Amino acid sequence: MLFQRPQPGAAVLSALLLGGVAHAYQPDQPFVEAQKKHAQQWAQEDAALDERLAELEQKYGKRPNIVYILADDIGWGELGSYSGGILRGTPTPNLDAMAQQGMKFMSHYSEPSCTPTRLALLTGRYPVRTGVDVVLWPGQQQGLADGEVTVAEMLAQAGYKTAMFGKWHVGELEEHAPENQGFDYAYYGLYNGKPYSWANMDAFYKAETIDGNGFEYDFPGTLEDYQEKYGIEVHGHFEGIKGKGRREVEPLGATSMPTMESGNIERIKNYIRDNAQAEQPFFIYWASYAQQMAASPKAFRGRPGYDVPNLQSAELAQHDDYVQELLDTLREQGIAENTLVVWVSDNGPMYAFWPNSGYSWLRGGKGEVYEGGVRTPGIAWWPGMIEPGQTVIDLLSTTDLFTTAARIAGVRDEIPSDRVVDGLDQTALLLNGNGHGRRNYIFHYSGNRLAAVRMDNMKLHIKPGSQGGLPNMEVYNITRDPGEKFGSMYYQLSYVVPFQRLIGKHRRAIEKFPHRKLPTGTFVE
Amino acid sequence: MLFQRPQPGAAVLSALLLGGVAHAYQPDQPFVEAQKKHAQQWAQEDAALDERLAELEQKYGKRPNIVYILADDIGWGELGSYSGGILRGTPTPNLDAMAQQGMKFMSHYSEPSCTPTRLALLTGRYPVRTGVDVVLWPGQQQGLADGEVTVAEMLAQAGYKTAMFGKWHVGELEEHAPENQGFDYAYYGLYNGKPYSWANMDAFYKAETIDGNGFEYDFPGTLEDYQEKYGIEVHGHFEGIKGKGRREVEPLGATSMPTMESGNIERIKNYIRDNAQAEQPFFIYWASYAQQMAASPKAFRGRPGYDVPNLQSAELAQHDDYVQELLDTLREQGIAENTLVVWVSDNGPMYAFWPNSGYSWLRGGKGEVYEGGVRTPGIAWWPGMIEPGQTVIDLLSTTDLFTTAARIAGVRDEIPSDRVVDGLDQTALLLNGNGHGRRNYIFHYSGNRLAAVRMDNMKLHIKPGSQGGLPNMEVYNITRDPGEKFGSMYYQLSYVVPFQRLIGKHRRAIEKFPHRKLPTGTFVE
Repeated sequence: MLFQRPQPGAAVLSALLLGGVAHAYQPDQPFVEAQKKHAQQWAQEDAALDERLAELEQKYGKRPNIVYILADDIGWGELGSYSGGILRGTPTPNLDAMAQQGMKFMSHYSEPSCTPTRLALLTGRYPVRTGVDVVLWPGQQQGLADGEVTVAEMLAQAGYKTAMFGKWHVGELEEHAPENQGFDYAYYGLYNGKPYSWANMDAFYKAETIDGNGFEYDFPGTLEDYQEKYGIEVHGHFEGIKGKGRREVEPLGATSMPTMESGNIERIKNYIRDNAQAEQPFFIYWASYAQQMAASPKAFRGRPGYDVPNLQSAELAQHDDYVQELLDTLREQGIAENTLVVWVSDNGPMYAFWPNSGYSWLRGGKGEVYEGGVRTPGIAWWPGMIEPGQTVIDLLSTTDLFTTAARIAGVRDEIPSDRVVDGLDQTALLLNGNGHGRRNYIFHYSGNRLAAVRMDNMKLHIKPGSQGGLPNMEVYNITRDPGEKFGSMYYQLSYVVPFQRLIGKHRRAIEKFPHRKLPTGTFVE
Repeated sequence: MLFQRPQPGAAVLSALLLGGVAHAYQPDQPFVEAQKKHAQQWAQEDAALDERLAELEQKYGKRPNIVYILADDIGWGELGSYSGGILRGTPTPNLDAMAQQGMKFMSHYSEPSCTPTRLALLTGRYPVRTGVDVVLWPGQQQGLADGEVTVAEMLAQAGYKTAMFGKWHVGELEEHAPENQGFDYAYYGLYNGKPYSWANMDAFYKAETIDGNGFEYDFPGTLEDYQEKYGIEVHGHFEGIKGKGRREVEPLGATSMPTMESGNIERIKNYIRDNAQAEQPFFIYWASYAQQMAASPKAFRGRPGYDVPNLQSAELAQHDDYVQELLDTLREQGIAENTLVVWVSDNGPMYAFWPNSGYSWLRGGKGEVYEGGVRTPGIAWWPGMIEPGQTVIDLLSTTDLFTTAARIAGVRDEIPSDRVVDGLDQTALLLNGNGHGRRNYIFHYSGNRLAAVRMDNMKLHIKPGSQGGLPNMEVYNITRDPGEKFGSMYYQLSYVVPFQRLIGKHRRAIEKFPHRKLPTGTFVE
């Protein structure tokens, strides 16, 4: 919904009722306790960070711009800076340079799949709390609820101009759409044409592939065939404007598909140029289509040094170039130092697309709470503010991007206090580096089931049907064993009770702030 | 044996009989064909390299020093520069800096276990050809045969002073010993006390470990108990001098074990200082005990940032420091630019030691021909000669270190021509970087069984009982799938025939030059 700025009186009242302080947001219970423990240290650190941010604001006359780039299905190990790159026939020189100029996250955790991670980034909450906890399929009528508060709504309250480009995938209906969820401007694709685009991109490329790596889908026919079989209306690219609704500007088709990604990077560059010197700062959320095989134009296939004719390789090459174009535009406009850019992947590799899939060094992939599904690459870039060349092992959750944006924009007090917001403010991690992260736990959900829990260096897997007790659990020392090879409980029994206590706190917070319930029903009629 | 320099007449005769040219060594058949194909290009490249080496020789008045460091059980992914390091609670700042100052090999291949890799490095041959193809256990009487020619024997022919320090493990008898296999000087441990040292180091550390990670072995008793149960005499550190034999200078015991590694680095530094300005160049073969839990002193346990009380972490910390001390000594003596240092690990992690074991991002570990067993980290360092900061994906085999040393020392013609030498001259890769490697295949043996074959980007696994035909084989595209997750033959059937042809060539060369046969018998009486 369009965020309603709370009246001071009401906020104080609400905070009092909730037993907190004025405007205080509600983090998950384990963090409430950590806050108490570190109160003094963190208050000091935060005061120093506020000073740095105030200096920057004085210099540029506005709050910093924020750009969040969400990549699709890029696994931990895919990029050169994660020991992939040329080794896998897919050099990523630009993303590697971005990491070298900034901060590389070795322990960024997304949700295990596409829609949930988008919800986590947009709302700062575990998706299960929002009522949508799995990937939305074409025609489904659930989505990002009107009652959720998005990072765009929050930043709009701070006076930011807000824009979204790319793969939305948190709901097809107009109520779910970016222009109704806080974005002034959006140029986006719904997910509902995705299977059609896969099928037809395949046909599009097939003649040129040389080793029979092509796929066959259920819908190798026309758009009309597909629409009839799915029973839904299929869309390409929408343009949405806050208060004016949306219109389909590029219908889905073989000619529009290859330009979906290339068109967006041009729009993003123009948006940056148009807003670089504006009075208001901007927030850009670019949900890149790479790498889901719907957008890689011919120019990126068969580059020297790249695996040919692999489609994933071509898409990653394209994405790598486009990220560089974005950073170059910030530099060209003289606003790099006043722009935080965070790049993360939404989940691990989707091996269903093998051999045209991404890759991870870790166990498991997209859809799983093993590390290969949820530990994904992440990079933060902010010249002059983030010290270059850092390799960071502190935990970062995609939900943290919500809360960190609030802090950087100076609207921490606007984070809603009538619900649990899981994201933590990680400004200290960004600006002070390793050891300054605020997070020592993560709850990993598989759909609506709590399936794994990270606590310090340890990770508990809770198998279906278990409540986290013995038997039916695995515990890994994720520092010694990041690939989750040795989950025997034998010498880790001492961790069972601390895990049970952590889960108990998490569950008590859910009892206090229950998950949103959305109307059932699956397909749009 | 002490290498007999062949008389020119005899060498020409032998070469003529074998159908080759004078002094030509016998590489495996696939390389003979590659040589024909690239003859002109490689001749030009080699001529340019010879010029660079001649310039260096003129500057220093001698051939370059060569230092080979063989680490124990360090897996691919262990070091910071391979996305491990701090992420696993084991920072490796010095080895990472060494890689940054030189060349990091992403595709170095060892043999799958300890003794075989040592033989590969020393003889340049697949161990199966030497008659010893698996790990030698305490009391076994086979070893490095008198008839094999070692890199030390070869470099001694080139006028090098040669020294060996550390874990020998290619035979216990005097005929196998370093001082009788080409080294002027050696300070070394046999493997025969290893299980005793593990058991007793455990007792040594146990009181200080806090989480029950200690091991229990069969021999938690005294040296005498162990000797009686094994029926062998156990030794600690020997000092061997060419022509004078060896004497045991440090018997095995709880007081000598923690200083085995620290004592060796001091000896190595002294050896460098003593020989830095000598007329002759030197060759050092340092077979470090790290990381096999017999040598990490207390000072390296519990360092800030390191996993405590993990023994492997402490040993890697120690090794990382000691490598730096070696490089610093070369710099301090002003001979860094005239010294090639190559650091490689002998095989993947030995998970039997879990949780005090190394780690790999790849599938499998020590003892297996899956990548986790045989793809190991490797670094080459030669300031002024090797361009810094390179990440190299070209294939390098441990056997190549033999042949490359011959080239750099200027004694390529001394490589024996009456047997297959598998090592290739990789000087072009060292000095010219990616794309200049000479190797596009590797045969992976498991004991005496050909168990896997790498050819270009593809890898064939031949299961026991198969001859490499269908069924009972797996084929991986090792570039797209370095973790060997997708070995289905489905879309890789076209590679079967090229693999069969490659194996056929390899087998024909074995028929021409059969494997050495050693006398049977296992234990010394």
